[in-house]
Amino acid sequence: MKIALVAPSCTLKQEAADLVTALAATRRDCELAIHPQCFLSDGHFAGSDEQRLSALREVMEDESVDAVWFARGGYGSNRIAEAACSDLSVTAMRKTYLGYSDAGFLLAGLHKAGCEVAHGPMPQDILRDGGEAAVTRSLDWLLTRDRAGVEPSISYPVQAYNLTVLSSLLGTAVEPDLTGYELLIEEVSEHYYRIDRLMYHITGSANVRGVVELRVGNMSDIPENDPVWGSDEEAIVKDWCERASINYGGRAIIGHDAANRVVPFGRN
Amino acid sequence: MKIALVAPSCTLKQEAADLVTALAATRRDCELAIHPQCFLSDGHFAGSDEQRLSALREVMEDESVDAVWFARGGYGSNRIAEAACSDLSVTAMRKTYLGYSDAGFLLAGLHKAGCEVAHGPMPQDILRDGGEAAVTRSLDWLLTRDRAGVEPSISYPVQAYNLTVLSSLLGTAVEPDLTGYELLIEEVSEHYYRIDRLMYHITGSANVRGVVELRVGNMSDIPENDPVWGSDEEAIVKDWCERASINYGGRAIIGHDAANRVVPFGRN
Repeated sequence: MKIALVAPSCTLKQEAADLVTALAATRRDCELAIHPQCFLSDGHFAGSDEQRLSALREVMEDESVDAVWFARGGYGSNRIAEAACSDLSVTAMRKTYLGYSDAGFLLAGLHKAGCEVAHGPMPQDILRDGGEAAVTRSLDWLLTRDRAGVEPSISYPVQAYNLTVLSSLLGTAVEPDLTGYELLIEEVSEHYYRIDRLMYHITGSANVRGVVELRVGNMSDIPENDPVWGSDEEAIVKDWCERASINYGGRAIIGHDAANRVVPFGRN
Repeated sequence: MKIALVAPSCTLKQEAADLVTALAATRRDCELAIHPQCFLSDGHFAGSDEQRLSALREVMEDESVDAVWFARGGYGSNRIAEAACSDLSVTAMRKTYLGYSDAGFLLAGLHKAGCEVAHGPMPQDILRDGGEAAVTRSLDWLLTRDRAGVEPSISYPVQAYNLTVLSSLLGTAVEPDLTGYELLIEEVSEHYYRIDRLMYHITGSANVRGVVELRVGNMSDIPENDPVWGSDEEAIVKDWCERASINYGGRAIIGHDAANRVVPFGRN
């Protein structure tokens, strides 16, 4: 099975590429093809919009590629998401796509277009403490559909997003239909007041109000609130779910950390 | 003319209240009524949601009050905006409402409900360098509809918002209809990559795409982007306007600074 790596957001670190390559080499079932675009740099991004889109469309149209693994997050996939998810060929539709965080713009658009996508650890996560296990979880799922690394409490057709990414998706061309889905969210490096504002925004959406339940993953590296906020991320999420009559389903094991589990979109 | 001050977001500083009171006392046309709620503190907010909503509805329903001046921004007016803008009495509808930044949630909801609202300097702005002139601009407009402090290049019916607030409004119960309006935006303390993501989000909205033109005010205190972004806020706004076929109308004199001009919503 051939897995192509492209970087629709920010530049992949060479060290992460080397470690993931070494990891893949230890197993017989996997050929990793790291597209040179992963190492481009253009300001904030891994190359210009044109370069990132072109690399992504190239691997999507490559008959020999079975899965596309987004190299890392950061910011920038939204700038090419609508174009990347338009006019998909059968070749592109037959592939599996995996990533999270900023790659959520592509997960949304590709799921909406009918492709198989999953929210899960990306190559650059190998640099975290425990990152090899995280990355192995994604590889195991991509290669064998191994359930061991899948989020354990999924009960319904499911979608998972970074909270900021979901908020930014609403109203755009790649906004996914969430009606009847379980929705998992996670966040990193946002103040409590920002998490509160984001929850206000997403739970104000008629689309989000159509979910069967909402669960909250890890919200890590929350900067200190000034003044002290006085509650925590779970209380915030529960509060907004209650205001919007959304079922709160508890915690989920997703997030910007090594514990991050795989969440295959749709029915499981 | 009686102007009531309430704080739907964060706590007003006593020093600002004293300075604004002294400023108002130097003129004969103005009675300022600072609601005690302005000085409450409950975690991040100027009192609980109930206290902030109750104070706001109280001054809205007060026959003796001609205008409601939001004391300051911060975060929190969204938590009470839908309730504050529902079932308005004739007494509430006859008043003028003024503020900006986080108060934009209320400007949106009150304008949508048919009230006269304006985006402009708030009492706490008196603590800025040049803040007395800023605050005087709002008082002059509230008391005499003086055009001297009004944003000078308004050409169409207009609405003005903080960019983050506008992004957070989209899809909620207080989302205003922007069709046929000139839209002015401003921002403070957001990285370039966040400004870019916010512009992606708002220009992806069919509602925002209905504006006659979009102009950008000051975007101040932009934290350093890592890596270097390579352009500026005007280039970002122009780029997204172009992608969404929105007329870019140039700069506007609004923002989190002492130059902030008054923008009366609707026809001018």
